[in-house]
Amino acid sequence: MRVAIIGVGMTKFGEVWDKSYRQLFVEAGIEAIKDAGIDPNDIEAIYGGSMTPGQFINQEHVASLVADQAGLENIPAVRVEAACASGSLALRQAYLAIKAGEYDLVLVGGVEKMTDILTPQAVGALASAADQEWEGFYGVTFPGLYAMMARRHMYEYGTTEEQLAMVAVKNHHNGAKNPKAQFRFEITVDQVLNSPMVAEPLKLLDCSPITDGAAAVILANEKTAKEYTDTPIWILGSGHATDTIALHDRKSLTRLDATIIAAKQAYKQAKIKPKDVDIAEVHDCFTIAEIMAIEDLGFVGKGEGGKAVEEGMTSLNGELPVNTSGGLKACGHPVGATGVKQVVEIALQLRNEAGKRQVKDVEIGLTHNVGGSGGTAVVHIFSM
Amino acid sequence: MRVAIIGVGMTKFGEVWDKSYRQLFVEAGIEAIKDAGIDPNDIEAIYGGSMTPGQFINQEHVASLVADQAGLENIPAVRVEAACASGSLALRQAYLAIKAGEYDLVLVGGVEKMTDILTPQAVGALASAADQEWEGFYGVTFPGLYAMMARRHMYEYGTTEEQLAMVAVKNHHNGAKNPKAQFRFEITVDQVLNSPMVAEPLKLLDCSPITDGAAAVILANEKTAKEYTDTPIWILGSGHATDTIALHDRKSLTRLDATIIAAKQAYKQAKIKPKDVDIAEVHDCFTIAEIMAIEDLGFVGKGEGGKAVEEGMTSLNGELPVNTSGGLKACGHPVGATGVKQVVEIALQLRNEAGKRQVKDVEIGLTHNVGGSGGTAVVHIFSM
Repeated sequence: MRVAIIGVGMTKFGEVWDKSYRQLFVEAGIEAIKDAGIDPNDIEAIYGGSMTPGQFINQEHVASLVADQAGLENIPAVRVEAACASGSLALRQAYLAIKAGEYDLVLVGGVEKMTDILTPQAVGALASAADQEWEGFYGVTFPGLYAMMARRHMYEYGTTEEQLAMVAVKNHHNGAKNPKAQFRFEITVDQVLNSPMVAEPLKLLDCSPITDGAAAVILANEKTAKEYTDTPIWILGSGHATDTIALHDRKSLTRLDATIIAAKQAYKQAKIKPKDVDIAEVHDCFTIAEIMAIEDLGFVGKGEGGKAVEEGMTSLNGELPVNTSGGLKACGHPVGATGVKQVVEIALQLRNEAGKRQVKDVEIGLTHNVGGSGGTAVVHIFSM
Repeated sequence: MRVAIIGVGMTKFGEVWDKSYRQLFVEAGIEAIKDAGIDPNDIEAIYGGSMTPGQFINQEHVASLVADQAGLENIPAVRVEAACASGSLALRQAYLAIKAGEYDLVLVGGVEKMTDILTPQAVGALASAADQEWEGFYGVTFPGLYAMMARRHMYEYGTTEEQLAMVAVKNHHNGAKNPKAQFRFEITVDQVLNSPMVAEPLKLLDCSPITDGAAAVILANEKTAKEYTDTPIWILGSGHATDTIALHDRKSLTRLDATIIAAKQAYKQAKIKPKDVDIAEVHDCFTIAEIMAIEDLGFVGKGEGGKAVEEGMTSLNGELPVNTSGGLKACGHPVGATGVKQVVEIALQLRNEAGKRQVKDVEIGLTHNVGGSGGTAVVHIFSM
């Protein structure tokens, strides 16, 4: 059974002081419902991704909360959590539930409200996605973990700090064209290199921000999709894998096996090869993560990611535009929402509705969402 | 496609000071794997229920963690959260993934480690399953919410404090016969009535405890199940519904609509009526909850639950034994694990392996798991 995205929506990402978690979710949901042109009462289930509302806003049981706030009385609602991959994993579970024949029409949302607590607390909450007993206990947070990957990648493959910076520059360039992005301004390589050091070699502008926001998509089986739209976005492939939660237990510091395995599954299902992908939203929580992602997804060989960025391959007008939304870096990273936002961006691009950041002749798009330092990866492939 | 439970396992429930979250999960998982007689490497995915490890042990991303700790390298692992219904909702998602044809053999676990933080903190963590803005903010915790339901049930239907107490007495009677139960001793109605008041009319012995523990089951599609066992426990029906997260928004204080709707779905799928159920594990987080549950599940008419308990209908040798495991009250309530533990108990009873608490001639068993004050309910029906 084929499954399609028939509607998308998202809030403006940023430090949203005037809206709550529940308001953000509802706003994104309503936009997706309107975009799909469905009667909300026809929605049969909600799947939501949220990383740690327990720590960010002291609220669990958010599946019940969002169903309630959406006014979808008594509807089954499921929260899925896989750290920063929560959104796309929620999408995958909804996709499987439709494939099982359980539901015809499902709302998938991702939401996080991260700025209601102080930044050090937020960093601590995020760090709970790492191995608390073997990483968190010793004081390492995610910038530190990704810095180790960056160091090793530089050592093994000659990747440079400038190449890392170019990822941020590119993503800000794209984000500046996205009305929903948190950071809508361009930056230069020099600005990145001269920004405050966070965890050597990663500087402030190598890091994605703390963000509030929500994104939502409407999923339907083939029959239902065709009733509502002439431009369904089909899910061609869906892959999901884990790895050791702790970075030091991995076989390599310069690749994410979870990404490689999830991508392999998704490519196989979609019956395509990496070279067939026209556009990708990848998990650039730190600049090094995007470089590793384009390697692990097979777009370039291992170690060639930095050079590919430098040569413009992944730029908006390049051979394979990556993170046209601005990515986590510039569009923002409300952790549970990110995976769904990636799907929103790919759908807009495939529908030729991405405004100033529209890429020409997009036929196949890919999303790549990572939890923690690579303990989870989820990859989806889409086409019109 | 039919789906079956082919193996079950659980840790001893209680205040488990000498084992960690990850150890508990692995212990239950290994017991289930051994019980099923499968090669663990044949497991294709893990679905886990856990309510709030972020608040209890400062650890999120537990899907990756448990896959890692179980040594199941790179396996897809999904955490599902719906407060105290997390375990059974994880089971339902695994069931749907198998029905979708995505996996043949899945490990479903539920786990919570609640005693690593102080009791007031644990009560606060649990309260995050209520509506933080409209309930938690005003200081109400779950004993208070269920006390309001109890008061109204007493007012409308003449339910007595003695009848509430009899639920606890019955469940301790059963728990005393369960080697895995937290409380393995009998109590009397007088002891319940004279125990310290928590939230009038609920006394200490009307309340389920804070517990550490894990439970696990192995799920398989029909073909795979028959390869491994002659005694598969089939899932005949699976229902899931939500309600407003806040109690005050409900139409009634004396019933849980989520339970009624989820049960209706499950009965319809299973093609049975409530009177066909031989044994049930229901969500007795407080004694009033069990009385409301047997009404909402259709075992007795609305308002007749107290009398049914008093007359012994739900006792171990009654017409419909309820909570033979000891229930949440006496077996204990590690919140994310409870929904899976209920399934373990029903499977053992159906397989005639429940030892001193074995009920005779059990053909159909039901599990009923609630999140919050009724914001989520999940109902499953099983038979040999």
